[in-house]
Amino acid sequence: MTKARIGVTGLAVMGANLARNLARHGHTVAVHNRSRYRTDALLKEYGHEGEFVACDTPEELVAALERPRRVLIMVKAGAPTDAVIEEFAPLLEPGDMLVDGGNAHFLDTRRREAALRERGIHFVGTGVSGGEEGALLGPSIMPGGSRESYEALGPLLEDIAAKVDGVPCCTHIGPDGAGHFVKMVHNGIEYADMQLIAEAYDLLRQALGMSPAEIADVFEEWNRGELSSYLIEITAEVLRQVDAATGRPLVDVIADRAEQKGTGRWTVQNALELGVPVSGIAEAVFARSVSGHTELRRAARDLPGPADAPQAPPAGDREGRAEFVEDVRRALYASKIIAYAQGFDQIRAGSAEYGWDVDPGALATIWRGGCIIRAVFLDRIREAYEQESPPVTLLTAPLFAEALGLAQEPWRRVVATAAGAGVPAPGFSTALAYYDSLRAGRLPAALVQGLRDFFGAHTYQRSDREGTFHTLWSGDRTEIEV
Amino acid sequence: MTKARIGVTGLAVMGANLARNLARHGHTVAVHNRSRYRTDALLKEYGHEGEFVACDTPEELVAALERPRRVLIMVKAGAPTDAVIEEFAPLLEPGDMLVDGGNAHFLDTRRREAALRERGIHFVGTGVSGGEEGALLGPSIMPGGSRESYEALGPLLEDIAAKVDGVPCCTHIGPDGAGHFVKMVHNGIEYADMQLIAEAYDLLRQALGMSPAEIADVFEEWNRGELSSYLIEITAEVLRQVDAATGRPLVDVIADRAEQKGTGRWTVQNALELGVPVSGIAEAVFARSVSGHTELRRAARDLPGPADAPQAPPAGDREGRAEFVEDVRRALYASKIIAYAQGFDQIRAGSAEYGWDVDPGALATIWRGGCIIRAVFLDRIREAYEQESPPVTLLTAPLFAEALGLAQEPWRRVVATAAGAGVPAPGFSTALAYYDSLRAGRLPAALVQGLRDFFGAHTYQRSDREGTFHTLWSGDRTEIEV
Repeated sequence: MTKARIGVTGLAVMGANLARNLARHGHTVAVHNRSRYRTDALLKEYGHEGEFVACDTPEELVAALERPRRVLIMVKAGAPTDAVIEEFAPLLEPGDMLVDGGNAHFLDTRRREAALRERGIHFVGTGVSGGEEGALLGPSIMPGGSRESYEALGPLLEDIAAKVDGVPCCTHIGPDGAGHFVKMVHNGIEYADMQLIAEAYDLLRQALGMSPAEIADVFEEWNRGELSSYLIEITAEVLRQVDAATGRPLVDVIADRAEQKGTGRWTVQNALELGVPVSGIAEAVFARSVSGHTELRRAARDLPGPADAPQAPPAGDREGRAEFVEDVRRALYASKIIAYAQGFDQIRAGSAEYGWDVDPGALATIWRGGCIIRAVFLDRIREAYEQESPPVTLLTAPLFAEALGLAQEPWRRVVATAAGAGVPAPGFSTALAYYDSLRAGRLPAALVQGLRDFFGAHTYQRSDREGTFHTLWSGDRTEIEV
Repeated sequence: MTKARIGVTGLAVMGANLARNLARHGHTVAVHNRSRYRTDALLKEYGHEGEFVACDTPEELVAALERPRRVLIMVKAGAPTDAVIEEFAPLLEPGDMLVDGGNAHFLDTRRREAALRERGIHFVGTGVSGGEEGALLGPSIMPGGSRESYEALGPLLEDIAAKVDGVPCCTHIGPDGAGHFVKMVHNGIEYADMQLIAEAYDLLRQALGMSPAEIADVFEEWNRGELSSYLIEITAEVLRQVDAATGRPLVDVIADRAEQKGTGRWTVQNALELGVPVSGIAEAVFARSVSGHTELRRAARDLPGPADAPQAPPAGDREGRAEFVEDVRRALYASKIIAYAQGFDQIRAGSAEYGWDVDPGALATIWRGGCIIRAVFLDRIREAYEQESPPVTLLTAPLFAEALGLAQEPWRRVVATAAGAGVPAPGFSTALAYYDSLRAGRLPAALVQGLRDFFGAHTYQRSDREGTFHTLWSGDRTEIEV
């Protein structure tokens, strides 16, 4: 009997779909699940798609594999992952690979990789994006772990990954937790992107009084330009959907509480640790939690808004309205550039902090397809990083600097309109504030430092010479060098 | 020989000033420092202020104390605190108290308290705010730990705390880490407050072209109204300060990079864990880190701003300018209400999560004096929480709801002006977006949930009936209940 090239344990939808994807590409796949019924269901329904070896126990799975063994773990992040690792690790030999394809926290991945390395086993924390459909038809795959493990595993993963211009959406990200780290930031960026889309929709709805179907048309059109992306495309689909039970737009029937599973929050917590301002992602995470605070929202509902919130521009002014739609498009694109720039800054900082040497251009390349944030835009980011002297920040890459230049006046108008009309636009606003902060010749941070020196003797630096200084605020107010 | 009532170990400025404060109030204080020179310096310079007992070793300090023993640890947070605890704990008896007055992370305090409780020792993590001067003349003190320990320790701490209307700025906050937790949030609020002040200053400077001295006058006047507070007061002082070396306003000479020590970041990281949107604090933390990213700022300096940023309103329009100053004042006050409301929400959530039963009204009471955020405003918060049915959010307490009502139109104008003029105002903007989010009848979070259901089958709830639903997006697009 031929040995299987890879084993998959954990056959919920994601695991099952990855196993099918592998089998469909001609690889023999050993499959295992804690409760046998999932294994049976997979083989019964999809057994004809390729070569599967059904296994009842971890021992059987390991015995079914060619060497070095590759075991893909697709179980819940956290304790379940540790439990499965402890089941399999004793059955493996030096040089074998345990691949975690779940959404683990990268610090857990670092811990697990270090522990398994001691036992000679390669632990490969791997980001997988694209949802259930991506897993089956071609996800974006972000494996961390050793370079050596990638040699044995990469070709298989590249085989099942999405392809863009014939290039697989899979590359070796870097050692230990690098793969799960970039997947985390990917999800954080996804939060920001969706929040910005939601704000654009809300503005067209509230400030122009457009219907969901009309806004679906707008997004469909936007999807033909520089915003072209999976998220813009499916926004049109969702906005066009009519609820069968009520005949109303589905978006008006869905409860307006956005849930979250944790990767957005992790991204911001880590960015705070690294000192990287990811305000776009933070506002997206906060917006979701605000939406879920039902009691608070009920209490605050009667707080006063703009006396009369006239549509801006009014219903009669067709040309003005078309211009406003275009303003919103530009504001959305500019804010998106900011959110992605912040995310890539975090990846650079994380890579430096943990010694991963992540290649941002290669990362942008594998996010062009397969994953939720896939977009033409990622190809522009790839180009920016592949320049001879890559930019310090994506904002100054020629193409993005030009887009920001075109966008900045409309963007200002949109933020001002939102503020005036009482439509919350935290994502658009924070992106603009970040842009203006970076541009600023002087920031009022100097005043903050002055205050800190006043009440806490925290000292300050001067812009005209080296050194650390303190003013004797409660003395004669002379300055001393400390 | 009389035994000392309390011992202080760690005689850097904060420790020395607390020891002096205790001695000045007639308490005999045993003092100890790892290197003897600090002890000698303290006794030589301030020995006449009261009864000090100089101790060379932890053993001597412990021997000098009445029972139950009270040892106040004033060393660096982190490993140094653990080291000192390990030095003293073996010398103590059940019922004795170890008090940590440093800026420990509350999770460390929880760990230490649990470990020492096993050994019969009360560990009292205590927030102390007010800087060096506060420590000497009366700080705001936030002790956690057991109720029993507060009985033995509270009177002493209340003695040396600041007083407002005769009420000491010290109360028992709650078990284990509660004291350090509220001190952390206090600091987070302080970050937000300073950021808002900095934005108000920046707007008057950039949009009206006022000088620091003129703005100092404005803050001095503001300090006579509802904004009256220590931070507003010292802002006027800092803005009025002239640099002796250059003759320029000091605020123009200080390098515009605001530093941070970690409590602001901790506050936001914890708020994310608790699911509380503290966007005001987050933007303040991010603004500080943006200011420090020198390389990024240098690269972005030439990004385009508003074509011509006219002063708004122009220099000639005296009345219009006075109105804009008043708009900024109202925007500042409204944004401050938001930031504090968010901080108090976090305290409520933390109290529930960790089982502390923190009394927000009592907390507002002890923040009225001694600490950096001391203000008339805190008395308003105390009143709000002392109502028969305390508000779900401070925003809806009658006094604050009224202030927000008066402020909201000016606030909208200020955010719009900042956006148009290219002056970064992340704090003002996020506060307004939060206000408008809470007010909103419907949030676009419904669209976010729709998108999540589309790409990840994450399901959604309906606003018209119970249950969890999923639309078969890649099937016939009917809705199923799951």
